[in-house]
Amino acid sequence: MAGFKFRKFKKSLVLIFVLTFFIACEQEEVNTAFKESEKKFTWRMVTTWPKNYPGVGLAAENISKLVNKMSAGRLQIKVYGSGELVPALEVFDAVSRGTVEIGHGASYYWIGKAPSAQFFTALPFGLNAQEMNAWLHYGGGLELWEEAYDKFNLIPLAGGNTGVQMAGWFNKEINSLEDIKGTRMRIPGLAGKVWTEAGGEAVLMPGSEIFTNLQTGVIDAAEWIGPYNDQTFGLHQAAKYYYYPGWHEPGPTLEVIINKEAFASLPSDLQEIVRTASRAVNQDMLDEYTARNNQALETLVNTHGVILKRLPEDVLKKFKEITSKLLEELIVEDPLSKRIFESQENFKKNVSEYHKISEKAVYEMRELN
Amino acid sequence: MAGFKFRKFKKSLVLIFVLTFFIACEQEEVNTAFKESEKKFTWRMVTTWPKNYPGVGLAAENISKLVNKMSAGRLQIKVYGSGELVPALEVFDAVSRGTVEIGHGASYYWIGKAPSAQFFTALPFGLNAQEMNAWLHYGGGLELWEEAYDKFNLIPLAGGNTGVQMAGWFNKEINSLEDIKGTRMRIPGLAGKVWTEAGGEAVLMPGSEIFTNLQTGVIDAAEWIGPYNDQTFGLHQAAKYYYYPGWHEPGPTLEVIINKEAFASLPSDLQEIVRTASRAVNQDMLDEYTARNNQALETLVNTHGVILKRLPEDVLKKFKEITSKLLEELIVEDPLSKRIFESQENFKKNVSEYHKISEKAVYEMRELN
Repeated sequence: MAGFKFRKFKKSLVLIFVLTFFIACEQEEVNTAFKESEKKFTWRMVTTWPKNYPGVGLAAENISKLVNKMSAGRLQIKVYGSGELVPALEVFDAVSRGTVEIGHGASYYWIGKAPSAQFFTALPFGLNAQEMNAWLHYGGGLELWEEAYDKFNLIPLAGGNTGVQMAGWFNKEINSLEDIKGTRMRIPGLAGKVWTEAGGEAVLMPGSEIFTNLQTGVIDAAEWIGPYNDQTFGLHQAAKYYYYPGWHEPGPTLEVIINKEAFASLPSDLQEIVRTASRAVNQDMLDEYTARNNQALETLVNTHGVILKRLPEDVLKKFKEITSKLLEELIVEDPLSKRIFESQENFKKNVSEYHKISEKAVYEMRELN
Repeated sequence: MAGFKFRKFKKSLVLIFVLTFFIACEQEEVNTAFKESEKKFTWRMVTTWPKNYPGVGLAAENISKLVNKMSAGRLQIKVYGSGELVPALEVFDAVSRGTVEIGHGASYYWIGKAPSAQFFTALPFGLNAQEMNAWLHYGGGLELWEEAYDKFNLIPLAGGNTGVQMAGWFNKEINSLEDIKGTRMRIPGLAGKVWTEAGGEAVLMPGSEIFTNLQTGVIDAAEWIGPYNDQTFGLHQAAKYYYYPGWHEPGPTLEVIINKEAFASLPSDLQEIVRTASRAVNQDMLDEYTARNNQALETLVNTHGVILKRLPEDVLKKFKEITSKLLEELIVEDPLSKRIFESQENFKKNVSEYHKISEKAVYEMRELN
């Protein structure tokens, strides 16, 4: 009896055990799938901006916040200001090599590595913010940018736009082309070359050094961004005249750059979350500048006595002429730049025609009395 | 021995069984958490547009696609064209009542229910797309919109912008105010009231009826959107003159409306996914129109012989004057409209000043030769 009972009991136990084992196994499988979909990623984002810098720097933080919220913490991006992990001008290399997964900056900082990078931030007398976004997302621009960055192991995305910038701060009046001669100005990239070709002297320095050099007379003039940012830098304490229009940067796009392998390692939902967060912030930053620039400009003019001035027409015409010449030289040297230039110029020709009777006509119409 | 062995064996088995049970229990708990975070939601989005209509209709589809991808299918939104589930003009009520969870349309369709809704699409001589986005997201606009929709149980979000529209299609020339008199035009909302007050006759009809009524002479004129959409409607086959500028809609914002309880039922990551998808599409739609309007306009003018004309200054001045008068009347009747109007007017005054020396100056500068 006891033996029989034991055999029966043993049989039952084995059955229970085997069943429990199978159930456990099944649980284990679900659990693996669970773990896969809940796998956590921690990324580091290096930027070319000081930590939490208004506008441009906050855009990087906002991308990180959106990604964190949308992924329920599955992808966390820690943002580093310039110099915290790598210096501002090493952001491109750090992401390219995979030292970090993602970066935020401006493509025209990298023209030494990729001459065509200038086209993805801004061209003097080029597209404004609305037009840049249209060219990038519905005019073939982003595909060309991907091509330009492919060999650097990078995926580019639009990640913000400041809108039209100001022509800059001056301690001397610019009443004619004669006044450009010998004027030392902090102005980077292609616009700097235009400035030099027009008789001035373009000087390169990081944003953080502008104030002192302008105040001590090391330079006569400097461009930075626009009223909202320039005010926080206190540039009105270092220069008297504030010139417009921002001929050199009519709608600069900032960039998000992602290391290809890092991006490929994400599941597709997280990839889409990174793309969409960048796209949303690309608009959000322009919204912020658009809302805040005039308040800052009013304070600069009314409280701090800044003198607002327009660059003379003959100066702008000369800059435009030189820009065309320099672009012609650039595209002869680099076939990819040639293709990008042609795509963007063709787009500009078209969109300008429509904006004459739409956006520009609206600005004119609102001034009717 | 046998007894002892059995006891030991039984003990071991019980231990294994208990342990397995605990493991299974733990698995079960994880599995519940897994189910919670993987809970699926199926939403229905009703729209005021024909299914897959270029631009406006595709924006709704794009929001659905982004949400689906970013949530890895946890939130699926099925999009219905106008009339598929509810007629276009019942979208607001359907979402408000919770019959469906989400809708896509334009706020100024609902001025009969909420007079202040006009301000969240566009005002004649009002903000353009860039300025509307800035006002909504950094000028207090969205908060006022939330307040206006609160009693309807709705959460509003910006969900697209067409950019500046065209003034419309005409079968007679408008050379002076005299030519407005008696002219029957399909033009909705506040702008329609302006048209009537100026001596014309504003007629209401859905987009689908414009072509026939224009071709058969039931109406003399009609506004729709802009070249990209108007071309697909074939309006060039029904009218001769294509007028600009779009004084009545300088940058109309489309809306996403979400039923409050439906939104509250989502976990916070899905809520953020819905918000961010809408924000991204809000820009994406403007990008598409910006890229495609001029191509369409060129075809209309060069291939179809459409005559492009500008509304005379005295007509625009009169429209502007009447708009101010009608807005003054509107805000006397509705205190919330008054607050919204003051917020938007104050914002416009500020941003217009800055855009004179930035965006407008860029358009002017590019025309220098």
